[in-house]
Amino acid sequence: MRRRDDRYRCVINSESGSDSDSDTSMRCISCREVYLPRDAGTCKECYEEAGETEEELKREIEDLKAKVAFLRLDSGSSRSFSDVVLIASHDDGAAAAPPIPAHKSVLVSRSPVFKAMLENEMEESRSGIIKISDVSYDALRTFVYYLYTAEACLDEQMAYDLLVMSEKYQVKHLKSYCERFLVTKLTWDNALMSYAFAHQHNAKQLLDAALLQITANMDKLTKREEYMVLLEKDPRLIVEIYEAYLSKQLNTAAAGTGTSTSS
Amino acid sequence: MRRRDDRYRCVINSESGSDSDSDTSMRCISCREVYLPRDAGTCKECYEEAGETEEELKREIEDLKAKVAFLRLDSGSSRSFSDVVLIASHDDGAAAAPPIPAHKSVLVSRSPVFKAMLENEMEESRSGIIKISDVSYDALRTFVYYLYTAEACLDEQMAYDLLVMSEKYQVKHLKSYCERFLVTKLTWDNALMSYAFAHQHNAKQLLDAALLQITANMDKLTKREEYMVLLEKDPRLIVEIYEAYLSKQLNTAAAGTGTSTSS
Repeated sequence: MRRRDDRYRCVINSESGSDSDSDTSMRCISCREVYLPRDAGTCKECYEEAGETEEELKREIEDLKAKVAFLRLDSGSSRSFSDVVLIASHDDGAAAAPPIPAHKSVLVSRSPVFKAMLENEMEESRSGIIKISDVSYDALRTFVYYLYTAEACLDEQMAYDLLVMSEKYQVKHLKSYCERFLVTKLTWDNALMSYAFAHQHNAKQLLDAALLQITANMDKLTKREEYMVLLEKDPRLIVEIYEAYLSKQLNTAAAGTGTSTSS
Repeated sequence: MRRRDDRYRCVINSESGSDSDSDTSMRCISCREVYLPRDAGTCKECYEEAGETEEELKREIEDLKAKVAFLRLDSGSSRSFSDVVLIASHDDGAAAAPPIPAHKSVLVSRSPVFKAMLENEMEESRSGIIKISDVSYDALRTFVYYLYTAEACLDEQMAYDLLVMSEKYQVKHLKSYCERFLVTKLTWDNALMSYAFAHQHNAKQLLDAALLQITANMDKLTKREEYMVLLEKDPRLIVEIYEAYLSKQLNTAAAGTGTSTSS
């Protein structure tokens, strides 16, 4: 706005006399409201071009959605040709969960860990049984479903469970999906826990978002119980919080100086 | 541009002198050109909203592209766990083409015809061999690749071949892909041939586009050799062309009457 100058003015040439098209107000084509010159957005031509761009983007979205629908594997009927099963196993000797049928071809396509396991004549490849420890039957079933469909119905616990599995089996797409879900669930109450979790499982998006939440609440930080627990367990994580806070302060100060110099 | 009149004029306000917010010119935020009130597009607020919408659509496209990449099956390494092969077979006793490895789970997910074939204990299901007649090895290989990746490198002949296969095996996504490709290749020279082909293989998009091309060139229609061939072979198709032409003429006449009445 500052860069505008007032050498140009649009004035109404009232002598013109003609009575047609005598509308002198500028009406926004989109919201239909009258606006003043200083609130001008685009000219009509650019408005129409933008509309065309939006239509194109929407068509591209429709095409991609159709492609996704096509590429999803029908997890119901295709299971009949299963050549491998996954089992959620527990060290505590709990009753074994039902095996979850799958296909080696799908597992190796989605995970470099399964690829190494199944293509290298390991025990799992010969037996056709993959035991997955420390995971619930529900989480494993949801994990396998995601490998076939790129879809999962998440709650927070499920997102944590799937993030752990996707990190272990290097299913990047699912990991990013879980991280983005957990970022939307971040609050001051779960920020420290999420931060420690993100650190442990190498979840950069979640880590950054949690740090942002924590450094915005430094006045309350040391009063939290999790703070003491974390300090005891892994003091380096606490140091990283202070480092992030310091860096943020220095950046803010530098930006402030920059502004005052230029003004 | 023609519709602009000169009641509004952007003039240089050389006297203004003031440096306050007295800016009355409208400068398009997008193309940076000064415009007149009657060429107004949107107000600033709607312009900014439209920008946000565009950003959201672009993010959605990125997400969908990542999903497509995730759902694609790695056709190379996954072939090692193949449980079925497809063979392009010829009645003329030509040398058999190499078998193309695939997975029953993928075939049944992509095609209701393969699903019925493989889930109902038919010969193909027992033997693990699916013979496909009247197709080249290259077309069959491209067809199978598409079932795994939703991707195909097309030329016109390949698009015709794949359209026939996708109609036969009811792979709608591929059929639509081929039709859209062939529509872009339509010319007056191939319009009649495309029209007959589209009719034979139930390709509505291509049929409509070919009819449009033909009815725009009715003066040259009867002189074409394909016209005589088609008239001999299937006169109903020629009748449909005339019907479409007549309907188009009547619509144009009705629209013309509408215009002249209102003016």
